[in-house]
Amino acid sequence: MSDLSEYRQVARDLNVDAIALVPGPNFIRAFRKPFMSHERPFLAVIPVSGPCAAIVPNLELGSWALVDFDGPVFDWRDQTGYDEAFAALGAHMPLTSLAVEGQVMRVFVHHALKKAMPELKIVDAEKEISGLRIIKTEEDIAAMQAAIDISERALTRVLEGVRIGQTEKEVEQALIQALFAEGAEDQAFAPIVAAGDNSARPHAKARPDYKIQSGDALLFDFGARKHGFAADITRTVFVGDVSDEGRDVYDTVLRANKAGLAMTRDGVTAHDIDDTVIGVLEASPYADRIRTKTGHGLGRDVHEAPYIMRGNHQVMRAGMVYTNEPGLYEIGNFGVRIEDDVLVTETGCISLTSFPKDLMIVGR
Amino acid sequence: MSDLSEYRQVARDLNVDAIALVPGPNFIRAFRKPFMSHERPFLAVIPVSGPCAAIVPNLELGSWALVDFDGPVFDWRDQTGYDEAFAALGAHMPLTSLAVEGQVMRVFVHHALKKAMPELKIVDAEKEISGLRIIKTEEDIAAMQAAIDISERALTRVLEGVRIGQTEKEVEQALIQALFAEGAEDQAFAPIVAAGDNSARPHAKARPDYKIQSGDALLFDFGARKHGFAADITRTVFVGDVSDEGRDVYDTVLRANKAGLAMTRDGVTAHDIDDTVIGVLEASPYADRIRTKTGHGLGRDVHEAPYIMRGNHQVMRAGMVYTNEPGLYEIGNFGVRIEDDVLVTETGCISLTSFPKDLMIVGR
Repeated sequence: MSDLSEYRQVARDLNVDAIALVPGPNFIRAFRKPFMSHERPFLAVIPVSGPCAAIVPNLELGSWALVDFDGPVFDWRDQTGYDEAFAALGAHMPLTSLAVEGQVMRVFVHHALKKAMPELKIVDAEKEISGLRIIKTEEDIAAMQAAIDISERALTRVLEGVRIGQTEKEVEQALIQALFAEGAEDQAFAPIVAAGDNSARPHAKARPDYKIQSGDALLFDFGARKHGFAADITRTVFVGDVSDEGRDVYDTVLRANKAGLAMTRDGVTAHDIDDTVIGVLEASPYADRIRTKTGHGLGRDVHEAPYIMRGNHQVMRAGMVYTNEPGLYEIGNFGVRIEDDVLVTETGCISLTSFPKDLMIVGR
Repeated sequence: MSDLSEYRQVARDLNVDAIALVPGPNFIRAFRKPFMSHERPFLAVIPVSGPCAAIVPNLELGSWALVDFDGPVFDWRDQTGYDEAFAALGAHMPLTSLAVEGQVMRVFVHHALKKAMPELKIVDAEKEISGLRIIKTEEDIAAMQAAIDISERALTRVLEGVRIGQTEKEVEQALIQALFAEGAEDQAFAPIVAAGDNSARPHAKARPDYKIQSGDALLFDFGARKHGFAADITRTVFVGDVSDEGRDVYDTVLRANKAGLAMTRDGVTAHDIDDTVIGVLEASPYADRIRTKTGHGLGRDVHEAPYIMRGNHQVMRAGMVYTNEPGLYEIGNFGVRIEDDVLVTETGCISLTSFPKDLMIVGR
């Protein structure tokens, strides 16, 4: 059976009876198997001590048999619903308090728990549960490096093909195909391919009707998934030509990115990194174009702890991986973002991304 | 501004003050723009009458400007958190009851709402809110047909390449690449490519270490996404050879699938369809291999209403689309599933999937 002692310890630390995991990154880490949930509640309960229990959709029992699990399984069928399974769980393991992954568990599961156990106190322990994944193992890092290498090869391939007059959507589709051709097992997230004024939207969507023009900034924010781990890379290039303003903004963002890399090491805080990176942007003539923090942790989730922002005084430790992604965005004009995936080490850091960051003009 | 009158009517029908939508299929339908949420609460509140209100992460304001929205926006920044935005929402629009999408909204948003408005009654109205999407428009159906056509072309391409000795994972990767090469904007869900005993797991994952053998059943359950809509297709083929048992099980599942198609029309119930389809399987020598219901609605979500199962007496109406996907699964041996995407019409139905269903032997 998987070693669940660290989950039990989280429950103990939070002074709750148990931890509940639903399909997602923590579930995969704990039980080594991916499951789909969709409209079906699917839940593993890990108490402070003693056997676990699970609620499993009946049609998943064949897949569940591959999990090394110590405890009763309350299965349920679509035709009869899941209320009885939750009631059976409550009768078998009377709980007064339960820590859940607040950013993964959905409200219908919360409601099913409360219906079966009206007095149950449900605590959002996303931070503590996902926090168990915050220091990456060598195996984790190798998976992330593989995802990053695939992503960088895909970007190289796509940049060679960019031409003035293509639509954002065409370039996005070329990027997706290149990711899979280079060996991605999935995309880590829906990619951002944004040109011109769209590049000023941090979470832009590729437009099918906008043709890339000479002088446009062209921003790529994307990543492969490999062995369950995500890459998350941003590069901004210019198409055909670049204005002096574009060059100066690019240079400012790059200096901010490099300042963050230069001071990252075991022992600094997330606050310190953000303060350094954003400080460079604030000292520039473009301070009013700041819209985002430095970045976020990266692993099985694209966004996970540690969040690299002022006010977060979490100490960075060797083995953490975060995104260093300063950007400047002028709505209606253009945006620039440069994003590396950074592994913290005892004495400094290693950028797992190695795609060149010098200003690049493509499509001419 | 989007016509939100039908959402207001749902609130009225449920006797609640307002509906809350979070990024996902209902949000896209209502506001015509996709958004990412990740760790950030993002919420649109539509009251029974009067202006709406929204909670929007500050970095999304540039994208939010593209939404035609009538009402105040409470934005918040990562550095300061979202509690104040929820409190401001509560002060601006005092709510006593709120209907939410229980299968989309996550617990951390539920908790943020309750923290700002401790007396707020939160009602799971997934069925009623997503129910507004249950009758597909001509535009919806055209999008689904495009997604299905892409999926079928991809499967044709992949089946030509299947060889004994390939791993499940290799075939899965070929399928994913073919989907994008044929024009998918995304995958509708993580595909299932399962051979031999793995085909008996309804939600199997492709194994990197299992080599396909002669005589194996090989099950594909997958779909492209196009214009925001999902395809969901299953075909089971045999590799090299097929046993008499395999042939007989296949024939049984195909008869069940066809029986469902034959009796589907406006006016029958979801129960009736499942009773007919599962009835064919129950009358066969393989009744103990039944593990799933007939299927589910299909649209922007891969799994949505109407759920085609006994006990669901919902009346099927012209314009609904559902999956007809009977299967027989013997754990440790093999499974067969055949899945069509079916459009209900006034007088019968149209299978949007047209990939051949005669037993197919590939790889020889």
